[in-house]
Amino acid sequence: MISDTLTLVDGEVGDSLPLGDRGLAYGDGLFETIQLLDGRALLLDAHLKRLRRGCERLAIPPQPLLTSLRADIARLGSDGELARYGVLKILVTRGVGGRGYLPPPDPAPTRVLMLSQRPEYPDDPAQHGVRIRLCQLRLAQSPWLAGIKHLSRLEQVLARAEWRDPAIREGLLLDQDRYLVEGTMSNLLWVSQGRLCTPRLDLCGVEGVVRNHLLSRASEIGLEVEEGRYPLSQLEAADEVMLCNSLIDIWPVVALDARSWAPGAVTRRLQGLLKEDYLAC
Amino acid sequence: MISDTLTLVDGEVGDSLPLGDRGLAYGDGLFETIQLLDGRALLLDAHLKRLRRGCERLAIPPQPLLTSLRADIARLGSDGELARYGVLKILVTRGVGGRGYLPPPDPAPTRVLMLSQRPEYPDDPAQHGVRIRLCQLRLAQSPWLAGIKHLSRLEQVLARAEWRDPAIREGLLLDQDRYLVEGTMSNLLWVSQGRLCTPRLDLCGVEGVVRNHLLSRASEIGLEVEEGRYPLSQLEAADEVMLCNSLIDIWPVVALDARSWAPGAVTRRLQGLLKEDYLAC
Repeated sequence: MISDTLTLVDGEVGDSLPLGDRGLAYGDGLFETIQLLDGRALLLDAHLKRLRRGCERLAIPPQPLLTSLRADIARLGSDGELARYGVLKILVTRGVGGRGYLPPPDPAPTRVLMLSQRPEYPDDPAQHGVRIRLCQLRLAQSPWLAGIKHLSRLEQVLARAEWRDPAIREGLLLDQDRYLVEGTMSNLLWVSQGRLCTPRLDLCGVEGVVRNHLLSRASEIGLEVEEGRYPLSQLEAADEVMLCNSLIDIWPVVALDARSWAPGAVTRRLQGLLKEDYLAC
Repeated sequence: MISDTLTLVDGEVGDSLPLGDRGLAYGDGLFETIQLLDGRALLLDAHLKRLRRGCERLAIPPQPLLTSLRADIARLGSDGELARYGVLKILVTRGVGGRGYLPPPDPAPTRVLMLSQRPEYPDDPAQHGVRIRLCQLRLAQSPWLAGIKHLSRLEQVLARAEWRDPAIREGLLLDQDRYLVEGTMSNLLWVSQGRLCTPRLDLCGVEGVVRNHLLSRASEIGLEVEEGRYPLSQLEAADEVMLCNSLIDIWPVVALDARSWAPGAVTRRLQGLLKEDYLAC
């Protein structure tokens, strides 16, 4: 019998964190959500690279943390656990300590690994596409927090709480200047006059691992890639629109409020490339 | 023998939260830090009122949560525990559940009470004043998160990590438009041409309970109060500068980088009023 989840805290089976952990007190940490396929953690190096960038930004010592995480994951793999689950979430906090907001001078980061089953999408949104909406919440701009996947995610919670209609699969977020940023849980890309476009994430948003992978793959196959600051009208004029993250892979967007699209050729090509890369990685 | 801390989770002695708690996963919650004096929780009603405002903003059901918190606190008081400690921290999260960022439709909030000893300030900063600095980090602006004391506090952690010199007791924060907001752990007030001035907190910052108490007390004693958007130069031209929060009460600011002040008459008057109010509340 396979249990629903398996969680490790600092390498040991555990299911709780102390109240004094700074992840809980201040959102002082980072996370990664990684897809598991036949016992392999997909794009693992890219995930750990982003985690390292996050650690560096927050001044959480990345070593021996990253080495320990790799060892945990290798052990879970050789024990056959990775093959039993579909999702690996890594959560890293600055650990316990410090005085108020002041971080301890020598933090002992906490590392958590959570294995769980993959969410199921019986309506096959990767094939048929999804309807999305525009959120009212506007993301705050901060170059200090932009790009990394930190634990202070209350904006995403509030944005995702704006709707409960299960037929709407994602909400688009603009920033305070009304430029496009991302979805609540995904990155946003579109095709416009043959170019693959996506918002620059230097002021807000999370630099998704699949997003970055797709941008470099697109360049490799000769597709022009453009990152910039775009108003909503730019998206509405697009030929194809898609969302991506490490669990959904790529979902074509077929409707945003009154605007609709069909899943397009570039979207299908990128879906195919990602599938190939997953098999190879 | 008095232990260092006493912590209750949902009314029971406990020292950890489950990994699935949304406070840890997303900073999805709120907190309050309350001073204890001779077994009384100072300005408790105002703290619980701000907590309620936070719950309403985040759509965390405030009841029966607030009733349970009051019952916990009353019990700690009648057991004599409040008299043994100097600080009561309340932490409220949306609890466990939901799918990703989507909050559960009927959240079961988690409530945590943490009793600890009061930090000691042997150099008597309330009397002699403190030196402060200007932080490099600029607070992000978001009317969705402004004012409430939520758990997504990574900006404060990063700002407080900018210095370790213990002679510098606080760091001032500007917002992305370079207007004054607050300190990393305190609110900022100053006296200019007889008026008590403080930044408006509708775009960022925490609406401190002591700050709001002082603003209404100042009005009551005929002091003109002004909330606005101010550049740093406004502060530098002030006659008196002070910081406040629920643990430090009021600290006069005696130096910000090269600019210096002496603790002034309005500061002393407000310190006296606050002390009286504490004895009466």
